[in-house]
Amino acid sequence: MSNAKNESPTIRSAVLLIHCPDQKGLIARVVDFILKNSGNVLHLDQHVDLERQVFSMRIEWDLEGFVIPPEKIGEYFQTLVAEQAGMHWAMHFSDETPRMAIFVSKQSHCLYDILSRWQDGEWRIELPLIISNHPDLAHVAEQFGIKYHVLPIDKASRQQQEQKQLQLLAEHKIEFVVLARYMQVLSDEFISHYPNRIINIHHSFLPAFPGSRPYHSAHQRGVKIIGATSHYVTPELDAGPIIEQDVGRISHKDSVEELVRKGRDLEKVVLARAIWNHLSRKCLVYDNRTVIFD
Amino acid sequence: MSNAKNESPTIRSAVLLIHCPDQKGLIARVVDFILKNSGNVLHLDQHVDLERQVFSMRIEWDLEGFVIPPEKIGEYFQTLVAEQAGMHWAMHFSDETPRMAIFVSKQSHCLYDILSRWQDGEWRIELPLIISNHPDLAHVAEQFGIKYHVLPIDKASRQQQEQKQLQLLAEHKIEFVVLARYMQVLSDEFISHYPNRIINIHHSFLPAFPGSRPYHSAHQRGVKIIGATSHYVTPELDAGPIIEQDVGRISHKDSVEELVRKGRDLEKVVLARAIWNHLSRKCLVYDNRTVIFD
Amino acid sequence: MSNAKNESPTIRSAVLLIHCPDQKGLIARVVDFILKNSGNVLHLDQHVDLERQVFSMRIEWDLEGFVIPPEKIGEYFQTLVAEQAGMHWAMHFSDETPRMAIFVSKQSHCLYDILSRWQDGEWRIELPLIISNHPDLAHVAEQFGIKYHVLPIDKASRQQQEQKQLQLLAEHKIEFVVLARYMQVLSDEFISHYPNRIINIHHSFLPAFPGSRPYHSAHQRGVKIIGATSHYVTPELDAGPIIEQDVGRISHKDSVEELVRKGRDLEKVVLARAIWNHLSRKCLVYDNRTVIFD
Amino acid sequence: MSNAKNESPTIRSAVLLIHCPDQKGLIARVVDFILKNSGNVLHLDQHVDLERQVFSMRIEWDLEGFVIPPEKIGEYFQTLVAEQAGMHWAMHFSDETPRMAIFVSKQSHCLYDILSRWQDGEWRIELPLIISNHPDLAHVAEQFGIKYHVLPIDKASRQQQEQKQLQLLAEHKIEFVVLARYMQVLSDEFISHYPNRIINIHHSFLPAFPGSRPYHSAHQRGVKIIGATSHYVTPELDAGPIIEQDVGRISHKDSVEELVRKGRDLEKVVLARAIWNHLSRKCLVYDNRTVIFD
Repeated sequence: MSNAKNESPTIRSAVLLIHCPDQKGLIARVVDFILKNSGNVLHLDQHVDLERQVFSMRIEWDLEGFVIPPEKIGEYFQTLVAEQAGMHWAMHFSDETPRMAIFVSKQSHCLYDILSRWQDGEWRIELPLIISNHPDLAHVAEQFGIKYHVLPIDKASRQQQEQKQLQLLAEHKIEFVVLARYMQVLSDEFISHYPNRIINIHHSFLPAFPGSRPYHSAHQRGVKIIGATSHYVTPELDAGPIIEQDVGRISHKDSVEELVRKGRDLEKVVLARAIWNHLSRKCLVYDNRTVIFD
Repeated sequence: MSNAKNESPTIRSAVLLIHCPDQKGLIARVVDFILKNSGNVLHLDQHVDLERQVFSMRIEWDLEGFVIPPEKIGEYFQTLVAEQAGMHWAMHFSDETPRMAIFVSKQSHCLYDILSRWQDGEWRIELPLIISNHPDLAHVAEQFGIKYHVLPIDKASRQQQEQKQLQLLAEHKIEFVVLARYMQVLSDEFISHYPNRIINIHHSFLPAFPGSRPYHSAHQRGVKIIGATSHYVTPELDAGPIIEQDVGRISHKDSVEELVRKGRDLEKVVLARAIWNHLSRKCLVYDNRTVIFD
Repeated sequence: MSNAKNESPTIRSAVLLIHCPDQKGLIARVVDFILKNSGNVLHLDQHVDLERQVFSMRIEWDLEGFVIPPEKIGEYFQTLVAEQAGMHWAMHFSDETPRMAIFVSKQSHCLYDILSRWQDGEWRIELPLIISNHPDLAHVAEQFGIKYHVLPIDKASRQQQEQKQLQLLAEHKIEFVVLARYMQVLSDEFISHYPNRIINIHHSFLPAFPGSRPYHSAHQRGVKIIGATSHYVTPELDAGPIIEQDVGRISHKDSVEELVRKGRDLEKVVLARAIWNHLSRKCLVYDNRTVIFD
Repeated sequence: MSNAKNESPTIRSAVLLIHCPDQKGLIARVVDFILKNSGNVLHLDQHVDLERQVFSMRIEWDLEGFVIPPEKIGEYFQTLVAEQAGMHWAMHFSDETPRMAIFVSKQSHCLYDILSRWQDGEWRIELPLIISNHPDLAHVAEQFGIKYHVLPIDKASRQQQEQKQLQLLAEHKIEFVVLARYMQVLSDEFISHYPNRIINIHHSFLPAFPGSRPYHSAHQRGVKIIGATSHYVTPELDAGPIIEQDVGRISHKDSVEELVRKGRDLEKVVLARAIWNHLSRKCLVYDNRTVIFD
């Protein structure tokens, strides 16, 4: 079910995302590790958060001729470089095809947008299932040939249904979850299974207007600009690390319905950019903040 | 002390800003009043807030050949049109030169920007005085030839100093006040003297990050976009009717100092646009919201 | 095949779009026509282009209780108001469901976006057919249940194929055509059948980079911002009246492929906004320029 | 005449800007050079232009404890690293205070903005002189205590006056020149003295509307967005490498005068950002394109 236009990228590369307490010589140690093993660095982006004294880095290199076999790179890197520096790191390969699941409720605009991009091969992903608490969007899933699981949720059933959701995700080997206007709060336990791997779209410019009905609140307050925010889900509602935000200008002429209509386009594009950044292995999280390498 | 480039606009016009409960035939009644008295409508902008059932309107017409003398138009309009419809209205003339005062503390960027525009003749205003709680920016005022009054404020002296401020404003026949990064909270009593005539610039995208140190909070929260908000001052802090907002993109690379630096440019331009809208008689306020005619 | 969510709008209203040489009393004449026949004005937006001395206006009123029957309003308005003032006008009713056709080539992103909005009921339109010079996107049309006609075009066949296109449009009573990245130039003759009723999306910020391969040119020139432009099609290529534009920031890091990827999102949203403005009867054209009432 | 707020930055650092044909191991060679000489890398930003096969890099390191004395770093770097790799490079130090000259004609908005930032200490520069072809803005220069040289220019005098300009720049040891709405074309010979060191602000979104009267052209074309572009000056008019651009939304309601007014704010901020990027040693030029490290 992968529709990536470019099944075999010409270059097979590895990406390392690293963060650790800042100290001298970190860049050199990582670069040397790659160079001495005959890797060719394609991209390097690095940042030091002076306030928190945290070093972060994204480095991508060509695996052609690299001495260490891909499945061993992590082990070698941990032993030779990371351990000593106290590095947190994640490694990815350009020929991976991550498996994504979508959660929806009744609104379809983000779902259509994601499915169109997927079918169009814009993203290199597998998309084996959609989960919803309502049957309303089953026809959209069917149209695009994706399985659609309805798991209605109320106060009494929440815990049990979340267990079923987790089971489905596990069965389908899902790597990350996209909440495409899923109007249910996830339990801390659920979230703990996918740390920094659940991407939500909130229909306001956070931290303004968290919670429900942000367009109503925005209209009430009389703001001149509305926004949308995509973030990783954490136990605290609408307070997770922000991946992407964007805004659009409105005026006194816009009714709440107009805000909702204009906001849909913001939500679609902000969520899509967040997914793209996640897929491109450009997001690194610490201290409830993201570093988005570009 | 007026530096308007265009001392004698070729057309002398009148502007009416109106709002009232919505009802049939309001536009026609106003248009007829003007037309029957030989006025030529130059601009008409109108809006109905369906949720609150409020009609609002800005109408500007050429006074050339208008039958009613300018100083009598208000009275006639009240008697013949407004009374019956329960209209709130304000009338302005294009050849007025409003008198503005600036309040500052220690930061100079908005002050420089305003004084440059004034000296350049961009705005049709008189600018007879600047009031500050600190002596720091006296040299800037002097550079532009404006009187600078230092009225230091602490808890004990606030009430007394505000009385002096009010006295200065009255002496100089000030029509409206601009708080150009004035870091003091005004008392309800002070505000009551200038309802919807005190314009503040707040250095965040309200309602996100009200109060002090918004750039620190924005950095802490890890937002991807910062903003500035200009609003009329009301007793509730940072909660007055919003006149203008704008935003700028930031990244994880931006320290708090960078946010402050980038934010200054937003603050300058947002405050300047709000002053322009106020001067152009394009702002109408009801229910703590603005209608900004364009 | 209409999917509008709101089949029966609560208010049935009429919209008049008017432009003519500026002269005294135009607003009053139109407003009086409506008021004297018991219409209630819902919205009025008006503009005078002082340079060209052109008056333009959009007025919408509630038809409930209006004395003149809808099918006669045009005739009466022409006789009683428009004739004398030399007005060009168009009349629309809120309960119309315009019939739209889409032309595409091989790129799918705008097509998906339009079909999703249509299926989602975001727009009040009928969408009976898609015409393409390639078979590539037939599966998308099928997915959404729309007829897809393939009319391949080369130099020799152009004239003949355009005749077939025109015939299809006539058969399906198409009111306006959307070129959703249709990579063929239309003949003057074709265009003459749909004046200001063919909407194109061009993948640059016009007038920068007209013609083909604008992203390559943008990359070559080293611009820091890219854009998209939606306009009505006129015989001169990429020079028709602009309905909507938007831009996005890029950097030296963006390859041409990245510009194409980022540009797609601009194209989708700019085209969608242009269609919305057209459908909302908010576009008026004269002198190769648009007035977009808001 | 330096007004930098922060005369003694706590960290004295060096910045290297490098570009050369792409090849393996470039990052490592530069990083090693710094590390082996006891430098601590503060920032590293790097990019490979795959189309042109050009490697570019900005690296900044702490000079505290660096083995090579500052005045010798360039020589050593050339010998040990740059020569072999065919690198073009430029070196700067954080405690430099570049000397800037401003050229103006009659419009004051960019001049005020630059002088305010300078006086406010926002930029670490010396600003010893302003050169103009008109006397109009002498009072502004005087207000800020800067020398103002009037060198009127017509066809006959151009060459001679440019010689005087060059002499003044040499006398004052000017490092770079800012054309703050200077309405004269500089000769190729003049430009050759300051390659990539003359910054211009053009009042359109280039390459749209080059040359004179861009706001008139924008109004004529009916664009929905206007822009401003800051670029390094090259012999071909308005075709130099772009440093920064920004845009603002307009509508049919905006007259040419309104475009000019709104454009001024774009010009000010775009020029200021370009100067900032230049001062921060974040601009690198090759092939008539800029790399702007961020």
